[in-house]
Amino acid sequence: MTDNFHNYDTSTASNEKIGVVLDGKLIANDLKSRIAGEVNEMKKAIGKTPGLGIVLVGERRDSHTFIRTKVKACNEVGIVSVVAELPNNSKEGDICDAVSRFNDNPSVHGIIVQLPLPKHLDEEKIMNVVSVEKDVDGFHPLNMGNLAIAGREPLFIPCAPKACLELLLRYGMDLRGKKAAVVGRSKIVGLPTSLLLQRHQATVSLVHAFTGNPEKVTCQADIVVSDVGTPNTIRGHWLKPGAVDPKRSSGYRLVGDVCYDEAIKKVAAITPVPGGVGPVTIAMLLSNTLDSAKRCYDFT
Amino acid sequence: MTDNFHNYDTSTASNEKIGVVLDGKLIANDLKSRIAGEVNEMKKAIGKTPGLGIVLVGERRDSHTFIRTKVKACNEVGIVSVVAELPNNSKEGDICDAVSRFNDNPSVHGIIVQLPLPKHLDEEKIMNVVSVEKDVDGFHPLNMGNLAIAGREPLFIPCAPKACLELLLRYGMDLRGKKAAVVGRSKIVGLPTSLLLQRHQATVSLVHAFTGNPEKVTCQADIVVSDVGTPNTIRGHWLKPGAVDPKRSSGYRLVGDVCYDEAIKKVAAITPVPGGVGPVTIAMLLSNTLDSAKRCYDFT
Repeated sequence: MTDNFHNYDTSTASNEKIGVVLDGKLIANDLKSRIAGEVNEMKKAIGKTPGLGIVLVGERRDSHTFIRTKVKACNEVGIVSVVAELPNNSKEGDICDAVSRFNDNPSVHGIIVQLPLPKHLDEEKIMNVVSVEKDVDGFHPLNMGNLAIAGREPLFIPCAPKACLELLLRYGMDLRGKKAAVVGRSKIVGLPTSLLLQRHQATVSLVHAFTGNPEKVTCQADIVVSDVGTPNTIRGHWLKPGAVDPKRSSGYRLVGDVCYDEAIKKVAAITPVPGGVGPVTIAMLLSNTLDSAKRCYDFT
Repeated sequence: MTDNFHNYDTSTASNEKIGVVLDGKLIANDLKSRIAGEVNEMKKAIGKTPGLGIVLVGERRDSHTFIRTKVKACNEVGIVSVVAELPNNSKEGDICDAVSRFNDNPSVHGIIVQLPLPKHLDEEKIMNVVSVEKDVDGFHPLNMGNLAIAGREPLFIPCAPKACLELLLRYGMDLRGKKAAVVGRSKIVGLPTSLLLQRHQATVSLVHAFTGNPEKVTCQADIVVSDVGTPNTIRGHWLKPGAVDPKRSSGYRLVGDVCYDEAIKKVAAITPVPGGVGPVTIAMLLSNTLDSAKRCYDFT
């Protein structure tokens, strides 16, 4: 695997090898300019614009920051975004109604419900209301099931896993037969990443809170994806020399799960936080929304 | 883990330790007598009997043998089974119609389509017709997705994985934090078994055709589940001393994937073929059908 990254190897003055930093911003910008072009073409050809409906409940600072970033990204590529903001004390029915209105709105092609929801709400019930055809986050069990089953195609693949894969593929990684360790199994990152890597013929081990000595699994992996959300969980000795780590940011502070200073000396490639998987994840949300609009209008 | 099995350890005359044989027939009989009791109670209480609709296409000897076994098992516990037999040259539409008739039939609570189907048929299209509420094989992507996502509950869990789990649990296995290797990733066994073991807090590695040196993964595992279908693939040196292997039969010849003679000297427990996972799998089909009927009539 180190071979694939050979061209990207850099050396410090002291001849100490350090890993390539997988530049998420660069890739995200590339993706966004492609998406902007397609949005423009669609507008010219059929007079339609992709639309994203966002449901935002409560006052969490991190959620508001994420949504601002998503709205800004939509603007950049010409996707129309509509935010339904609901107060923290909203009832389940109010949120379901907001989702349903987006379901019924023909100019909305993608719907996201920003998670986490306030604790008094039944997340599963609310997420079930999101139409499978507009589930651009890919969290609907039907999309997740189709992602899991070989030979089937989900309508949408969750954005963070898609971003990890994009990073790996852009940097010339052939996933076939590679050992991958995914740390954490949320439906947002860990679980769908493990399913997506599997689809690409990697041998995947899913590590979680009950795993004893998780470092024994990660240190054998060619690829480590972390979805722990606890800064600096993944230490240098958890990683195999030459491994690749497209990790994700962890919440509002945007501190990486992986101990960057330790890891970069050891791995072939790593993603920084911020500026790694995050920007590509948002680009994937735009991409999913565009794809949904194209499917809706049968526009290719 | 060996501790859990301590009571079951047997020794040969030469003091050579050999593994416990997980007796599937015994467990299947126990399950079937419980199911028969509940079927009987349902009949007495509300005058209803669980029904299983079976779609069988073509002349494959193994498929016919499996269906005979399933019908016989239904009879044993008082579940009504109806087999729709279709010729090998059936059109997709004919098979979908047969499934639809079972969907619409209120006395059918479970539907199975015996796989594999003749090659000219689109399996995915046909399986999509099976109502999620009657999908007792648990192969519908919605059931698979709900199996994959933590905190959600599928209506049905596939029978072979349920059987593996039952064997492990009956023999006192605590799965939390155990390393499990699942070899093969079919939607029938490998994939759902990996998802189910994960739900039970095992650390799961999914090994498949593209895995280089699969024995390096399996020999570290406390639990090995094989879904390869090639006799004697799993050799003694693939297994960690003290591991447990609830493996499955492989097709018509009913020869196990695991090289039994080699493995039994090394592992804490193993399932034989025939008489291991197979009979328990069929009991799980009966159990899923009963559960479906109970749900349909709101009978507990």
